[in-house]
Amino acid sequence: MNGAENLLRTLVHNNVEVCFANPGTSEMHFVAALDRVDGMRCVLGLFEGVVTGAADGYARMARRPAATLLHLGPGLANGLSNIHNAKRGRSPMINVIGDHATYHRRYDTPLTSDIEGVARPFNDWVRTTPNSNSVAADAADAVAAARRLPGQIASLILPADAAWTPVTDRPGIVPTAAEPERPVPDGSAIDAAERILRTGNRAALLLGANATLEEPLELAGRVAAATGCRILAETMLARTSRGAGRTPVEPIPYPVEAAVQALHNVEDLILVGATTPVGFFAYPDKPSVLVNPGTRVYELARPDHDVTAALELLADACGPAATNRAVMPLDLPARPTGDITREKIAALVAAVIPENAVVVDESITSGAAIPAMSATSHPHEWLGTTGGSIGFAMPVGVGAAIASPGRKVIVLESDGSGMYQPQALWTCAREKLDVLVIVFANAKYQILQLEMYNVGVDKIGDKARALLDIDRPTIDWVALARSMGVEAHRAETMDDLSRLVDAALVDPGPNLIEVPIR
Amino acid sequence: MNGAENLLRTLVHNNVEVCFANPGTSEMHFVAALDRVDGMRCVLGLFEGVVTGAADGYARMARRPAATLLHLGPGLANGLSNIHNAKRGRSPMINVIGDHATYHRRYDTPLTSDIEGVARPFNDWVRTTPNSNSVAADAADAVAAARRLPGQIASLILPADAAWTPVTDRPGIVPTAAEPERPVPDGSAIDAAERILRTGNRAALLLGANATLEEPLELAGRVAAATGCRILAETMLARTSRGAGRTPVEPIPYPVEAAVQALHNVEDLILVGATTPVGFFAYPDKPSVLVNPGTRVYELARPDHDVTAALELLADACGPAATNRAVMPLDLPARPTGDITREKIAALVAAVIPENAVVVDESITSGAAIPAMSATSHPHEWLGTTGGSIGFAMPVGVGAAIASPGRKVIVLESDGSGMYQPQALWTCAREKLDVLVIVFANAKYQILQLEMYNVGVDKIGDKARALLDIDRPTIDWVALARSMGVEAHRAETMDDLSRLVDAALVDPGPNLIEVPIR
Repeated sequence: MNGAENLLRTLVHNNVEVCFANPGTSEMHFVAALDRVDGMRCVLGLFEGVVTGAADGYARMARRPAATLLHLGPGLANGLSNIHNAKRGRSPMINVIGDHATYHRRYDTPLTSDIEGVARPFNDWVRTTPNSNSVAADAADAVAAARRLPGQIASLILPADAAWTPVTDRPGIVPTAAEPERPVPDGSAIDAAERILRTGNRAALLLGANATLEEPLELAGRVAAATGCRILAETMLARTSRGAGRTPVEPIPYPVEAAVQALHNVEDLILVGATTPVGFFAYPDKPSVLVNPGTRVYELARPDHDVTAALELLADACGPAATNRAVMPLDLPARPTGDITREKIAALVAAVIPENAVVVDESITSGAAIPAMSATSHPHEWLGTTGGSIGFAMPVGVGAAIASPGRKVIVLESDGSGMYQPQALWTCAREKLDVLVIVFANAKYQILQLEMYNVGVDKIGDKARALLDIDRPTIDWVALARSMGVEAHRAETMDDLSRLVDAALVDPGPNLIEVPIR
Repeated sequence: MNGAENLLRTLVHNNVEVCFANPGTSEMHFVAALDRVDGMRCVLGLFEGVVTGAADGYARMARRPAATLLHLGPGLANGLSNIHNAKRGRSPMINVIGDHATYHRRYDTPLTSDIEGVARPFNDWVRTTPNSNSVAADAADAVAAARRLPGQIASLILPADAAWTPVTDRPGIVPTAAEPERPVPDGSAIDAAERILRTGNRAALLLGANATLEEPLELAGRVAAATGCRILAETMLARTSRGAGRTPVEPIPYPVEAAVQALHNVEDLILVGATTPVGFFAYPDKPSVLVNPGTRVYELARPDHDVTAALELLADACGPAATNRAVMPLDLPARPTGDITREKIAALVAAVIPENAVVVDESITSGAAIPAMSATSHPHEWLGTTGGSIGFAMPVGVGAAIASPGRKVIVLESDGSGMYQPQALWTCAREKLDVLVIVFANAKYQILQLEMYNVGVDKIGDKARALLDIDRPTIDWVALARSMGVEAHRAETMDDLSRLVDAALVDPGPNLIEVPIR
């Protein structure tokens, strides 16, 4: 047994059972080991951004890490922006990055780079394993690091000779990763929060990492029912349990003015795995901090606390389970017909989301009305933007689908973002994933045209406009999807869209629908 | 005038006249300034790998840096692998990377990252400009750094407030970048090399960075004519002047055995901007260093020397310009017909390369026979793999075309590599670039199947095979290219290919031809 095989056995033993991969020469022994070790599903991405984005999507749904397999510094670099998103969204992830053989690195050959240096800005844990005997223990440490709350990015660098050399030190032993600590706020912190909520002031819980899933949301709903507080959430959320029967929650809006407005009347803001709200970008003459200066901010639970346990303690402190907990009703809009508008799109999407679906949302301006409209859809999971690096949605959809057999994955994509990692479509086709991608094609970076005014530019000239439009040529999403084996159609009217969505929802997938926005 | 405008003026004043861009909110003032400052051509890429690869291609042909415009840490990250290639190929490049406003960074908002840390592993020069008054001087320093021999990567990080704040300190002054030093080996080093070449031993020049362009190659040819030495070159070369009338040069082969063989008989190896040859990867039981242990290695010129000047001094020391300098004849193969084979492809490509064309080669195994066959084609420039990160060819083709109006750019691409940054096709269409892309589609990572055996794996199982094949589904390159506005056709026979190439060569482009390899 060589180091690569022992690495694989250690990952599988510790319940890491999916590996998203784009290997190169230095990873060939890992690839070969896949046929000697049972229990690892390997999924090829044609570009590393697909690989890491898929690992993010997998973690959001499976609540445990997948592995990735990446080829030296440049392969890692290609996956970094989706690793950034995963880190900001608190997804656990284990990156296995091949390197040159240890004795070869000193020659500084063309593919050599400082892999630890490349990994560090976007990773929580980075280690180069020195040899085949160290691989298993280091892999177990990587698993433990990834699982640490609230979810971490761990990168294990695997020199080629550590992979190909036989294991001589206890080759039969596969180490078990340490269980993560699950710290909870102490009793006095819970009591303090309960007292704040009992004062009668206008109070709000602000939910962050991992606190917007069904169980913590229900607990937050109990607190709200007992005390009358609002339930806010951070603007960018990796996953929210939404729709009929779920607890209503108000994410802080993205635009600075709207965010300030949403927070304006809050006298006491209680952070539950969240941080004090700040603007995503700075704008001239607008505030960075969004909270009213008069608001008192109290941190009940840090992001690395067990936020569900913290909310359970708080809910119990607030009294017995209330019978009047607010939940969203089922209220489906009528299906719109005729010309396509953003409002009609929102109504249609809200009407058709199937029960238990997973929605990945990167629809940006075109889909701006969908979240509000779909709050009363059939219950579903909503995976949103986390780190703000665009192009995540189709890769995240790949991983979410692999983590969620039996659930429909609907990716709401925009054309500008979708062109970042369109290769994800190929993996959807190869793995026959039950994914429906809806691309809203307005042929421009519409958000940037809005942001241009937000940062104080009052006139967009021709040269600037050419960097904000993505027409000339117009992208043919139907041809693009079909080129990678994904069945695709274009909707010219709401009636088309309605019919195409119905067909796609009963098809095992994958499918893509292009929706031109004019 | 604000900082962004002063930055643009400084770049243009210092002959940086093309900016490959994918901007975001933090770069909106730079974008707006484009309409107020003349002289900068801005080219949009739909993904940052296209942006940085195009800057690499531009530099290889223009012999001066382009700028890039990138959006914070993740935008830079998406461009890093092609920056790695550019760095290894010694291409000068100036990256302008937007960041949050200085006062906003402390809030660690979702798009925040350690941009300097992200840049450092793949850059030679990194600086964050602190405010609008420092921008111009820092931009001039970035230009100077990029121009330093043998060509460097400089990254200037531009906080949003440094871009949008008015310049108050000498706003009318635009600084001139320092001219790069062009060091040459001293006379004793030249004399020593000349003495080595005169001993009658079997000697070879080994040409590296920037030494395989027409002028230094011709000088190396004079040395060879006077002394009988061989002319070798590094395996991976950013640009080589080849074809009829050019000096014959032997690049060291990629496979370890062939490289060792090529170097075996050399008694004296004289490095001219090159480093001692080492294997690209390490393999079990194969050497890392390729040079015969008995070979004496002498460094005439470092990579950061003016290698052309060094060769001129050496050629003069070796005697008057020889009249018997060897040059390649014009010898075009007959056009093959019938079924498509790799050998026939090589003959056809060699037969049709137009005079003065620029060939970008990432054809890997499918095109393995092309370089030898095209050595006697019409004179042309050959842009090859440098850093070994795949997917460079179409982006490099974009930049090469923009730097070389009036010259045909032929991109020899493979399907595995081409799927890394297919978005480059869109930029070809938007900019109406005179580019012909020929995609050799074998539906597999063929090189990895060979490398698997090279690293000692004797059996490829089903799970491993699934990571090395990229069929299921087969990629339809014609549909893919057309989806991005590039006219495309498929060649099923050599006769098809011959006809399609002829048509594409007289078309102003862009065009793509898919060549299935079965």
